[in-house]
Amino acid sequence: MSKIKVGVIGATGYAGAEICRLILGHPQAELAAISSVSFEGMALSEVYPAYRQLCDMVCENQEKVLEKSDVVFAALPHGLSQQMAAECVAAGKSFIDMGADFRLDSEEEYREWYGGAFTDKALHQQAVYGLPELFREAIQGKKLIANPGCYTTAVPLALVPALEAGWIEPEGIIADCKSGVTGAGRKPTQQNHFPELNEGFTAYKVATHRHTPEIEQTLSRITGKRVFVTFVPHLLPVSRGILATCYARLKPGTTEEALRQAYEERYRDEYFIRLLPKGQTANIKNVRCTNFCDISLFTDPRTGTFVAISAIDNMVKGAAGQAVQNMNLIFGFEETEGLRLVPPAF
Amino acid sequence: MSKIKVGVIGATGYAGAEICRLILGHPQAELAAISSVSFEGMALSEVYPAYRQLCDMVCENQEKVLEKSDVVFAALPHGLSQQMAAECVAAGKSFIDMGADFRLDSEEEYREWYGGAFTDKALHQQAVYGLPELFREAIQGKKLIANPGCYTTAVPLALVPALEAGWIEPEGIIADCKSGVTGAGRKPTQQNHFPELNEGFTAYKVATHRHTPEIEQTLSRITGKRVFVTFVPHLLPVSRGILATCYARLKPGTTEEALRQAYEERYRDEYFIRLLPKGQTANIKNVRCTNFCDISLFTDPRTGTFVAISAIDNMVKGAAGQAVQNMNLIFGFEETEGLRLVPPAF
Amino acid sequence: MSKIKVGVIGATGYAGAEICRLILGHPQAELAAISSVSFEGMALSEVYPAYRQLCDMVCENQEKVLEKSDVVFAALPHGLSQQMAAECVAAGKSFIDMGADFRLDSEEEYREWYGGAFTDKALHQQAVYGLPELFREAIQGKKLIANPGCYTTAVPLALVPALEAGWIEPEGIIADCKSGVTGAGRKPTQQNHFPELNEGFTAYKVATHRHTPEIEQTLSRITGKRVFVTFVPHLLPVSRGILATCYARLKPGTTEEALRQAYEERYRDEYFIRLLPKGQTANIKNVRCTNFCDISLFTDPRTGTFVAISAIDNMVKGAAGQAVQNMNLIFGFEETEGLRLVPPAF
Amino acid sequence: MSKIKVGVIGATGYAGAEICRLILGHPQAELAAISSVSFEGMALSEVYPAYRQLCDMVCENQEKVLEKSDVVFAALPHGLSQQMAAECVAAGKSFIDMGADFRLDSEEEYREWYGGAFTDKALHQQAVYGLPELFREAIQGKKLIANPGCYTTAVPLALVPALEAGWIEPEGIIADCKSGVTGAGRKPTQQNHFPELNEGFTAYKVATHRHTPEIEQTLSRITGKRVFVTFVPHLLPVSRGILATCYARLKPGTTEEALRQAYEERYRDEYFIRLLPKGQTANIKNVRCTNFCDISLFTDPRTGTFVAISAIDNMVKGAAGQAVQNMNLIFGFEETEGLRLVPPAF
Repeated sequence: MSKIKVGVIGATGYAGAEICRLILGHPQAELAAISSVSFEGMALSEVYPAYRQLCDMVCENQEKVLEKSDVVFAALPHGLSQQMAAECVAAGKSFIDMGADFRLDSEEEYREWYGGAFTDKALHQQAVYGLPELFREAIQGKKLIANPGCYTTAVPLALVPALEAGWIEPEGIIADCKSGVTGAGRKPTQQNHFPELNEGFTAYKVATHRHTPEIEQTLSRITGKRVFVTFVPHLLPVSRGILATCYARLKPGTTEEALRQAYEERYRDEYFIRLLPKGQTANIKNVRCTNFCDISLFTDPRTGTFVAISAIDNMVKGAAGQAVQNMNLIFGFEETEGLRLVPPAF
Repeated sequence: MSKIKVGVIGATGYAGAEICRLILGHPQAELAAISSVSFEGMALSEVYPAYRQLCDMVCENQEKVLEKSDVVFAALPHGLSQQMAAECVAAGKSFIDMGADFRLDSEEEYREWYGGAFTDKALHQQAVYGLPELFREAIQGKKLIANPGCYTTAVPLALVPALEAGWIEPEGIIADCKSGVTGAGRKPTQQNHFPELNEGFTAYKVATHRHTPEIEQTLSRITGKRVFVTFVPHLLPVSRGILATCYARLKPGTTEEALRQAYEERYRDEYFIRLLPKGQTANIKNVRCTNFCDISLFTDPRTGTFVAISAIDNMVKGAAGQAVQNMNLIFGFEETEGLRLVPPAF
Repeated sequence: MSKIKVGVIGATGYAGAEICRLILGHPQAELAAISSVSFEGMALSEVYPAYRQLCDMVCENQEKVLEKSDVVFAALPHGLSQQMAAECVAAGKSFIDMGADFRLDSEEEYREWYGGAFTDKALHQQAVYGLPELFREAIQGKKLIANPGCYTTAVPLALVPALEAGWIEPEGIIADCKSGVTGAGRKPTQQNHFPELNEGFTAYKVATHRHTPEIEQTLSRITGKRVFVTFVPHLLPVSRGILATCYARLKPGTTEEALRQAYEERYRDEYFIRLLPKGQTANIKNVRCTNFCDISLFTDPRTGTFVAISAIDNMVKGAAGQAVQNMNLIFGFEETEGLRLVPPAF
Repeated sequence: MSKIKVGVIGATGYAGAEICRLILGHPQAELAAISSVSFEGMALSEVYPAYRQLCDMVCENQEKVLEKSDVVFAALPHGLSQQMAAECVAAGKSFIDMGADFRLDSEEEYREWYGGAFTDKALHQQAVYGLPELFREAIQGKKLIANPGCYTTAVPLALVPALEAGWIEPEGIIADCKSGVTGAGRKPTQQNHFPELNEGFTAYKVATHRHTPEIEQTLSRITGKRVFVTFVPHLLPVSRGILATCYARLKPGTTEEALRQAYEERYRDEYFIRLLPKGQTANIKNVRCTNFCDISLFTDPRTGTFVAISAIDNMVKGAAGQAVQNMNLIFGFEETEGLRLVPPAF
C-alpha cells in the first residue's frame, strides 16, 4: 500500500519540526514537502543538525507543499491559516491547522481574544476541533481540523470526566498551568534568553491568556452550559512539558473513589491517557517525547476541593502528536499509528 | 561596641550554611560556634568549598555552641528543638528555631501533622511566631522564636492585606506553590538525584503538606476566624526560590485598584516587601539570594477571582534571612542590618 | 520469523533501562526477562513511570533471566560479570557485558586499575571488544562481548582515522572529555544531588580515570604500538551526552584537507558516524537519544595541533545502543536494526 | 571622606549591570551616573527587576556619565572605547575599559584578530593591562586600564607560576575552556535561546577565538619569549562561570610537589587566588558571584603532562570584579575593598 503524502508548512518552527520527526517514523505516511518562510532553500537538517542524514529535505514554498501533499499540516502565525485552508479544501486535500484560526466557534470570541475576523464563515463551519479523546467521532473522515493548543489539551483532559459525571461544580474552576519554553516558539526573545530564564520561574498573561476561551469552549460543550475558568500559565525553565494543576469544588457527597471510577470508565479505552494509581503524581518528565497524557487525581476533604493534575509534552500531545493522531483519524489508520513512542526514562 | 555572638546548630545543612553566610556579612554579629552531627570536626569550608578562606570554622558539638553563643539558631530535624530551646532559655540565651517544633499553637494540630507532643507546655507559651511583617511587635525583645517555614512565609504575605481589608472571601483559598530543590534539604534522595529531577516538574504531598496548618494558623489569626486553605506544593528544577500563586474569591464590588491600595498601605514601610507595579509579575529570579518578598496582584473580573503571586528565596526570606531579621528584632538592631543584600541580576 | 529473546540483568540502572527501551522498539527482538537486585518483584514501570503501559514487566532474579533468554545484557558492578558470563556461555547463550570485566586484554592492567583478577582466563580469551566501527569483523557471530565504556567509545572514534592514516603523532594525545550525569549511575550521591551539581562544572579523576587504559588499548591496537593518553573527564550539569575534545600534534605537512579525507574514507559506510562539514561543531544535543557519533575536525596551524571533537549520547552509543548494535552483529541482523532512531530536535 | 564617583557606560549589559551591583556594595565609591544606548531614559531596575529599590537610577547618555564621574567603566562593543578613553583622559578622569581596544600591545595583532586600527597610538601607550595578580605595580595610580577578558584571566592565572618557575615547557600549551552563557552577552540569539542551549554542550571558535592573542601576550611577557597556545572554548548550559583546563608538558624531573610549591609561593599573598589542596578540583560553583580564582594542580606522570585547572566567575573576576579591583588600585584603596564577597554555597 502506498503511503500518504504529508506536507508541513512552517516546518522549521518547533511544532513543524516535531511533526517531521513523527512522520519520519510513521509506517503509513511519508514526508513529501516542507516549507519555511525564514529558511526557504535550506535543508531541515541545516536548521536542526540533530536531523542530519535523517531529514535532509530542503524547505520549499507553501505552493509546492500544497501541490505535493495529500494532507497539509500548517504551523503558521495566527490569522494566516484561513486562506491556506481554503485552497487545500478546494483542492480536495486535508488540512490540519496547528494555529488558532479555526479553534473557536464564536467569531465574537475570536475577535475579542485574537483581534481578527472569520474571513470565510462557511469554511469555519467545516472545521472540526481535533481533541480525539473528547470529539473522536466528529473528527473521523473530516478534511479540516483545528488542532488544539497545548494548555487547551491538558486542562480539559484533566477535568472532563469529573464534569461529565457531575461530581464537581462547573463554577469556580482554576487551572494553574506550567509550561516548558518550547511553547513560546523558536524565535529568540529577551525573556527566553538562557541567562534570563535559567533558575527563574514566573507567571505570565495572568487570567488573560488566549487559550482561556478555548478551554471554556470545550468544557462548555461537555457540560452543556457556559463554563468560565480562571487560567494562569507559568513558564518553567525546562524545554518541554506542561503540568496542569486544576482545582474545582466537589459537589456535596463526592468521594475520591467515585471520581476515580468516573475517570477509569471514561478513559478505559484511551491508549494515550494514563490514569495514575492513587498516590502517584503526574510529572512532565514521564511524558517527554510521547503522546501520553498522564492524569492524577486528589481530593482535599478539609476544603471540599478536587485537584486533577495532568501532564503532557506540549510539543507532542500538545501539538504535533495530537495532529498526527488527527491525521490517523482522517485517513482511517490505527489511531496510535506512528505514536506508540517509547520515551527515554531519564 | 562588641558584636553579639552567634551559634548555629546544624550548620552544614542548607539553612544552617545560609545563616553562616549572612552572619559573616552582619556588622553587629559574629559567628562564635557551629555544630553538625554529620560533620563534627570538619571545617564548614570542607563541606562547602565556596566558603574556603571565608569560613573555615570547625564544627563542634551542640553543647559548645550553646556555651559560646548569645543567640542560637537551630536547624534541627523536627522534634529535636524543644530540649535545646529549654536549655538556651534556662541559660538566658536567645533561641531561634528553624524547625517546626514551636510554630503551631495547637498541640493537637502538632500531633496530627507532625506526630509529636509538646514536651514542655510552658516553654511553648513563651515562643513567638517570627514573621516580622505580620507580628513584629510580638517579636521584639523576645528570647524564643519559631522561625516560619518557606511556604508559610510566601503564602500569608501574598494574602494578608486583602484579607485584612476584607476584599476577599476567607473561604475557598487555594495556594498553588512551586519551590526550588534546596527546600528538600541537602541529603541526597532518589527524587532529587540530578537526572531524575532535571527537565521534570511535578506536584507532591497534594493537600497533605505539613505547612498547611501553619498557613491556616496565620490567616486565622489575621481574620479572627478559622480559615482553611487548599495547599498544593510543586517541585521546580531550580536550586532556590518559591513562587506562590494564591487564588481567592473577590467579594462583590472589589476592584483591583482597591486591592492594590490595601497592599500599598499595609506594606508601605516594609523594606523587604516589594509590591510590583500593575502588569509586572513576581519571578523567583529577582529575589534570589535576598530577603525580599516580591508581590504582584491580579484580578480576573470574568470569574471574580483574585490572584496574588509572591516570590521569595526559600533559603533567605523563607529561612535564614528571616531568622536574621528576627535576631535583629530581638537585639534591637536595625531590622534590615546585614540583610540589605544586592543580588546578582542574572 | 520468531524474535530472539532478550534478558537484561540490572534492568533498573540507567544503562539497563535504556537497553529495555531499545529492545521494545526492535523488530527482531523481544524482552523476555529482566532482573534487579534492588527492585526484585517490582515492575520496571514502577521504577521508571515513563514506561507505564509500555514495559510493566516485573523484575525477577538473574537465574530467571538466564533461563528465559537467548542473549543476556548484564549491567552489573565491575567484578560481578565474570561468573554470569561463564554460565551463559556454558548454556550456549550470548552475553553482552556492559561492565569492564572483559574489556582489558591485560590482566595486569585490570588489576592495576580495577583491583580485581581474571577469574577464568580461558573465558577472557573468548571475549571480543565490541566497538563495531573499529572491530566489526571480530564481533560477528561471537557469543561474549565486552561492550565499551562511554568515554572509550567517544575518544577512539574521534582519533582513529587520523592515527591510521599517520597524520598525527601518537605521543602527547590529550582527551578533555565532558559527560552528562547519567554516566555516574542512578544511585543518589552528594555530588549529584541537584542543588550541588546544578550551575556547577568541574573535572574529576584527573588523569586517573579507569577508562584511561581502555582508550589506550584501542589506540594501541590501531597503531600497533603502545599509545599513552592524558585523559581528563569533567561532569556537565546535563542528563545525557559526552563531548570529547581530543588534541594531537600534527605531523609535519599534514593539512586539514588530508585529515578530512582520511575520516571521510574511513567512515564512509558507517551509518552511526556523522562527519560534520567544515566549520560545524559536534554538540551533545544533536545526538541525544540516538546511536550517532558526530565528529568535527579542526586544525590549529599556528601551533601544529589537531583538534577532533566527537559527541555521543553516553547512554546510547556509549552504552545501550552500542550493545544492541553488537547484538545485531552477533545474530546477523541488519546492524542498524532498532537503532535508526529519529531524535527530538530540541 | 567623600566617596569617589563612578560612571558606567553600557550599564544594561551583563558586565555593566554587574559593575553596578559591586559599586552599590563598595564603601568608598558611589554610582554617579549610568548610560545605555538601548535603554536611555529607563531605570536600571526596569531592565533588571532584581535591582528594584536597590538601583532605580535612570540611564542617561555617555556625555552625562563622563561629566558626573571620577572614574568611568566602559562596557562598549569593540572599537568604540578609544574615543571615549581619549575624552576621559583629557578631562583628567580614570577610564577602565571592559572591551578589547587597549588590551593588545601590537596593533598588527589587533588588526588581525579584531579588524580595527589603533586610532591614537600615544593613548595606547598610556594603557595598562589590568590583571593585578600579574601586573599590580604597573596598574597602581594609572588612569587608563585595559581590563582583561574572562578566558584571558583564567588561563594565565592557571599557568603563570609554573612558567615563571620553569617547570613546564612553553611550547605545546593547550587551554580547553568552558564558559557559562553570560559570556556571550545579553542580546538574544538563536544559539542562546533556552531550548537550543539547554541540555546541549559544544565547542565554538575552535582555535580561532579572539582571546588567543591576549592569552599569548600575557604568557609571553611572563616568559620573555613568544608563547603560542591552542585555545578551544566551549559553551556550558549554565549562567556564570569559566573553568579552564590547561595542559602543558612537564620539564624532565619536575614533580607535583615542586609545582605546588611554586604556586604557593607565587600566590601566597593573593587574597583572590585560592590554591586548592591536593586532590580537590576547582568548580565554577564555588566561585559564583565572587572575585576568587580557584586553582587546582595535577600531574600525569604516565604522560609527563601538567594539568592546571582554574575556575572564575566570568562576570566577576572575569569582568566586573576585576575592574573594581583595578579601580581600587588606581585610587589607592584596599585592593579587596567591596570585593570580599561571601557567595551563596548552593
